[in-house]
Amino acid sequence: MGSLNHQQEAVDLSHHINVKSKSRHPSPLKEIIKFMGYDGMISLAGGLPHPSLFPLERARFDCLPPSASLGDQQTETDLVSLNLGRGLSPGDLDLTQFLQYGTGAGNRRLIQLAEDLTERVHAPPCHYECLLHPGNTNAWSKVVGLLCEDNDFVIVEEFTYPSAQALWIPLGIKAAPVSADAEGILATNLREMLESWDEKSRRSRRPRVLYLVSVGSNPTGITISAKRRREIYQVCVEFDLVIVEDDPYYFLQYPGYSPQAEEQPYQPKPTGEFLKSLTPSFLSMDTQGRVIRLESFSKTIFPGLRLGYFIANPLFTERLLRATEIETQDPAGLSQAFTLALFNQWGVDGYLLWLQSLQHQYKTRRDWLVSAIYDQFTVVSAAKSPLPTAQGHVACLQDKVTGKLRPVFSFVDPEAGMFVWSKFYFGGVARFIELKAQSVEDPEQAFAQELWEAMVAELVLLTPGSYYHAWQGSDKVSTKARGADPRSAFFRFSFATPTKEQIEEGVKRMRKVIGRVWEATS
Amino acid sequence: MGSLNHQQEAVDLSHHINVKSKSRHPSPLKEIIKFMGYDGMISLAGGLPHPSLFPLERARFDCLPPSASLGDQQTETDLVSLNLGRGLSPGDLDLTQFLQYGTGAGNRRLIQLAEDLTERVHAPPCHYECLLHPGNTNAWSKVVGLLCEDNDFVIVEEFTYPSAQALWIPLGIKAAPVSADAEGILATNLREMLESWDEKSRRSRRPRVLYLVSVGSNPTGITISAKRRREIYQVCVEFDLVIVEDDPYYFLQYPGYSPQAEEQPYQPKPTGEFLKSLTPSFLSMDTQGRVIRLESFSKTIFPGLRLGYFIANPLFTERLLRATEIETQDPAGLSQAFTLALFNQWGVDGYLLWLQSLQHQYKTRRDWLVSAIYDQFTVVSAAKSPLPTAQGHVACLQDKVTGKLRPVFSFVDPEAGMFVWSKFYFGGVARFIELKAQSVEDPEQAFAQELWEAMVAELVLLTPGSYYHAWQGSDKVSTKARGADPRSAFFRFSFATPTKEQIEEGVKRMRKVIGRVWEATS
Repeated sequence: MGSLNHQQEAVDLSHHINVKSKSRHPSPLKEIIKFMGYDGMISLAGGLPHPSLFPLERARFDCLPPSASLGDQQTETDLVSLNLGRGLSPGDLDLTQFLQYGTGAGNRRLIQLAEDLTERVHAPPCHYECLLHPGNTNAWSKVVGLLCEDNDFVIVEEFTYPSAQALWIPLGIKAAPVSADAEGILATNLREMLESWDEKSRRSRRPRVLYLVSVGSNPTGITISAKRRREIYQVCVEFDLVIVEDDPYYFLQYPGYSPQAEEQPYQPKPTGEFLKSLTPSFLSMDTQGRVIRLESFSKTIFPGLRLGYFIANPLFTERLLRATEIETQDPAGLSQAFTLALFNQWGVDGYLLWLQSLQHQYKTRRDWLVSAIYDQFTVVSAAKSPLPTAQGHVACLQDKVTGKLRPVFSFVDPEAGMFVWSKFYFGGVARFIELKAQSVEDPEQAFAQELWEAMVAELVLLTPGSYYHAWQGSDKVSTKARGADPRSAFFRFSFATPTKEQIEEGVKRMRKVIGRVWEATS
Repeated sequence: MGSLNHQQEAVDLSHHINVKSKSRHPSPLKEIIKFMGYDGMISLAGGLPHPSLFPLERARFDCLPPSASLGDQQTETDLVSLNLGRGLSPGDLDLTQFLQYGTGAGNRRLIQLAEDLTERVHAPPCHYECLLHPGNTNAWSKVVGLLCEDNDFVIVEEFTYPSAQALWIPLGIKAAPVSADAEGILATNLREMLESWDEKSRRSRRPRVLYLVSVGSNPTGITISAKRRREIYQVCVEFDLVIVEDDPYYFLQYPGYSPQAEEQPYQPKPTGEFLKSLTPSFLSMDTQGRVIRLESFSKTIFPGLRLGYFIANPLFTERLLRATEIETQDPAGLSQAFTLALFNQWGVDGYLLWLQSLQHQYKTRRDWLVSAIYDQFTVVSAAKSPLPTAQGHVACLQDKVTGKLRPVFSFVDPEAGMFVWSKFYFGGVARFIELKAQSVEDPEQAFAQELWEAMVAELVLLTPGSYYHAWQGSDKVSTKARGADPRSAFFRFSFATPTKEQIEEGVKRMRKVIGRVWEATS
């Protein structure tokens, strides 16, 4: 684990470390390692298998160059070759160290690289360390193991990533959701919730952890604006919260959608300009050491790597290292070796160039989806729509005779990530009225389920918004009990994987189902 | 996760699953995957990054052939080349699937391979499933998350692997150690402990989990004999224990040391004979589905893979899969791809041939160490020694004048693994008598520490046995409080990494220190 000397020291946050994490001790086996380094020492102490007995001698990886033009019919391109040998070929990266057990902290050069990237992209004002982890899923699991006690509340967005919640639901932990507008969760609502937190009625201490996917959130697609971030950070300082910034989509930020714009040919910007175009992270404004940032290569290199890193206050990384030693050990050696070799070949600037190309790809795919919505519906700005309280844009059906607009769903054009989040309004839809009249327990949920099934029957698959509800306990599951808006429900569109043609056909099929359901009379 | 149909169904062990594990639900995101497989379905539901945007096109690995002669001056040998491409070269393993997110269960063909190996090696009598995991460290962490409640007791060997304990000590879990002889832990002692378990005075329910490194145990080197295993299994049935068989050294079993034997040239046996020579696993005698076996490739391929698999009752693997989904996801893709490609190339028989070669290597290294002890000390069988209660062999100093033997340490010749475990006797040593007279708190521990430091000063490093004490709570740390044998302490020798010359020199240095300490008069 490396470290950089910065001028600012963190405030004391040691009270945030939970009881179990506090009671971890460094393994005595790690303690003895320093004696192995003595000049002339003969060690009969280590328990490592003999490296001459590993069957792998050389690894070669053929990679795209960072300037590859992606997305076209993958044209045969000159590949970059990464050579990793066991000390055999001079100049190649030595593979041996990646085959052996590590110390938990990960390869030193890879850590150094993580620090270089951190300085380039975030320049954190406070002292920090980087620590490798095997992907953000595991990183979040370790953070919960670091900060949360059973039956705590964790503050999250109103709609949040289900696997993050699935981890802590068995611990009795619940979500304390904060609502958001197009710029992200509302700092005012966050303050209000914290100010009015009643430990007795909540039967739990005031929350201490704020979990955010702050760029291109899964599912909402929202990127928290710079201004909003500063407001939120201020509240976190006041109420002593730790911010966990789970940010796999950070580099997939792109400009908003313009209905009229021609598709632009891809033209990379100078690196500095690219970096400046990205929303500043919470880490970049963390003057107190209260941000734990989870970095992942899953969306920028590939998910199977199972590799990422924490950037955090050394107080936290030290405890996370203790957990790493006994829960996972180092990330897989081939993943570490591949990533280091790739960076050696590409350079940090090459990686940043690659990211621009990725960014352009996801922008293009976003455009395909939003265009398809414009093609199939009459889209108006929410403010001018029959739903003035909706956010972003509203997709409407237009009456062929009267020309009157009937709103179906609103969506916010995402400026990052892979998702369009939509809110369907079905207050006047005959089938919904029927369900309500039948006094079904949760008519909103029942209607959304029927709508989803009708789309499945038409062979188009969206993700039900109910998957992403913040978990507030088994007594707060229904639309009413959650206090959610009546007569509406959410769906998530993903534009990451389908082709342009599939997206267009998929939205057409959806339009067909909506036409049928919205225009039916009971 | 695959499954095989066997005749025997497991008994109902669902009461072993702990409260937190019971309350995990499958992710709804996993539920939707089956709809993605419908003919003609257009999915706007998935959240996976687009595979055309992964920069890795081809991976090639040059490996030793399974028949490579290891350990010699690594002679240049014809390497086996593994080719993994992204559907580019026909016949090569398709890399794409390994770059993408998996389902948690791991690659199907790799699971199938794990099942094939399990059938060949263990032929479990009961229905089971295999589930991949990222190494036994993480596997054990998931098993504790599956079976243990806070403040439980776990039954372990008297000396056990410290990282396994470090995981559960913060949970308030303690060890209930069972003593062992050269054939492993004593079934009679295990039964006695369970029969007489007093929940009130122990302030904990009777233990339900038996954790064993049952072959070439770290640190004791003991391999539990077939007969002893059957006795232990019977007690586990009676007292309803789950056996966790953590068995990374299973294939590193080898014949005992013969002082007179010439070094034999390596000659592989037919595969069937090799397999028959291995002690039967607990899994192979598990007629009730109460064995969870942790398999690892760390000692047989290389540790950096971070890859292994559970073999267990489907009741348990289903819960372990739920934990995998939210705690780690699939093991790293390159590790899975490499291992599958290696097996495709080598075949299961090739792998078993490779293991014989490894086995021979570790046997040779064990011989180097034990020979060096014979060279530096007078070694007599324990039964004939001045310490008739000791086990195995006793290394003695011989008085040059009287010829009288003075015992220094006993050790059991390990027939598996990487370690020689030794018990030092220092009842009559002047310095120890002095420490006792000074009423230091734990004179045994103090003496062992001084001895260890004296060896460090002489540039030979052993691992202190105290690292491996079963953790019974902070009130049971001293030799006396633990009820351990007085006037003795343990050290672990590892023969895995040093060369023959280093081992010989290391033991010579140790002999020098022992001579000085044992012969000193106060």
